[in-house]
Amino acid sequence: MRSRLAVVALDARDPSRVAEFWAAALGWDSWPDPEEGGVSLAPPGASGPSGAAGPSIDVMPVPEGKTVKNRLHFDLRADGSTQAEEVDRLLGLGATRVDVGQKSDVSWVVLADPEGNEFCVLQRSVQEVDAAAVSGP
Amino acid sequence: MRSRLAVVALDARDPSRVAEFWAAALGWDSWPDPEEGGVSLAPPGASGPSGAAGPSIDVMPVPEGKTVKNRLHFDLRADGSTQAEEVDRLLGLGATRVDVGQKSDVSWVVLADPEGNEFCVLQRSVQEVDAAAVSGP
Repeated sequence: MRSRLAVVALDARDPSRVAEFWAAALGWDSWPDPEEGGVSLAPPGASGPSGAAGPSIDVMPVPEGKTVKNRLHFDLRADGSTQAEEVDRLLGLGATRVDVGQKSDVSWVVLADPEGNEFCVLQRSVQEVDAAAVSGP
Repeated sequence: MRSRLAVVALDARDPSRVAEFWAAALGWDSWPDPEEGGVSLAPPGASGPSGAAGPSIDVMPVPEGKTVKNRLHFDLRADGSTQAEEVDRLLGLGATRVDVGQKSDVSWVVLADPEGNEFCVLQRSVQEVDAAAVSGP
């Protein structure tokens, strides 16, 4: 017996806006949920948010705004580009650079989505991680 | 160009305790990171946290405690058991029932991990979702 990680749920004042950002950031498809007022996101090719191999993302409406640094956050890896190129692309989608007290010499870049949810862009791209897995770290 | 969701990072006062809970909840393997003081978790069979097909979980040490309801949370599906059996198992691992204002008739159960991070156990098991995907909703 165990649990499967099915969904990472993300509270939002404006689910459409936040979901639009994350769909563009990850290249995922979106499914609005008119009943709940949220938006579900899953990787392309999934038959729906429940059909994804990994967790989907549900952006859910809440009345309250964000007040403190989130205790959960996403770390992204550039896929098909460098970290710097991907940071520029994400800034163009509506991300902002944020200071969460990170040191100046860390290898990751800290950004926030349109509602201020912090996330990091890691230094090594997907391709660099895959190459290291084949040849050793 | 896009980003891959590589990691969901979870801040913790006591990363070992929180990671132990989530490893047992999900049946995932853990890799301590002595340099950062955190613990990485990934599904069994992965060569390491970076080798997982889906996102890994990094439990990272922070000095501050939790103050408000998290804006990101995990939704779990029971895998090989019913929702009620899985809730009992998670309570036995150190989860607690919490009230985040959910209505009394919702289909999911709201719990919190040992540091109070809210998560939900969804009604339908992995097996029920898979069956619905084959035969239609």
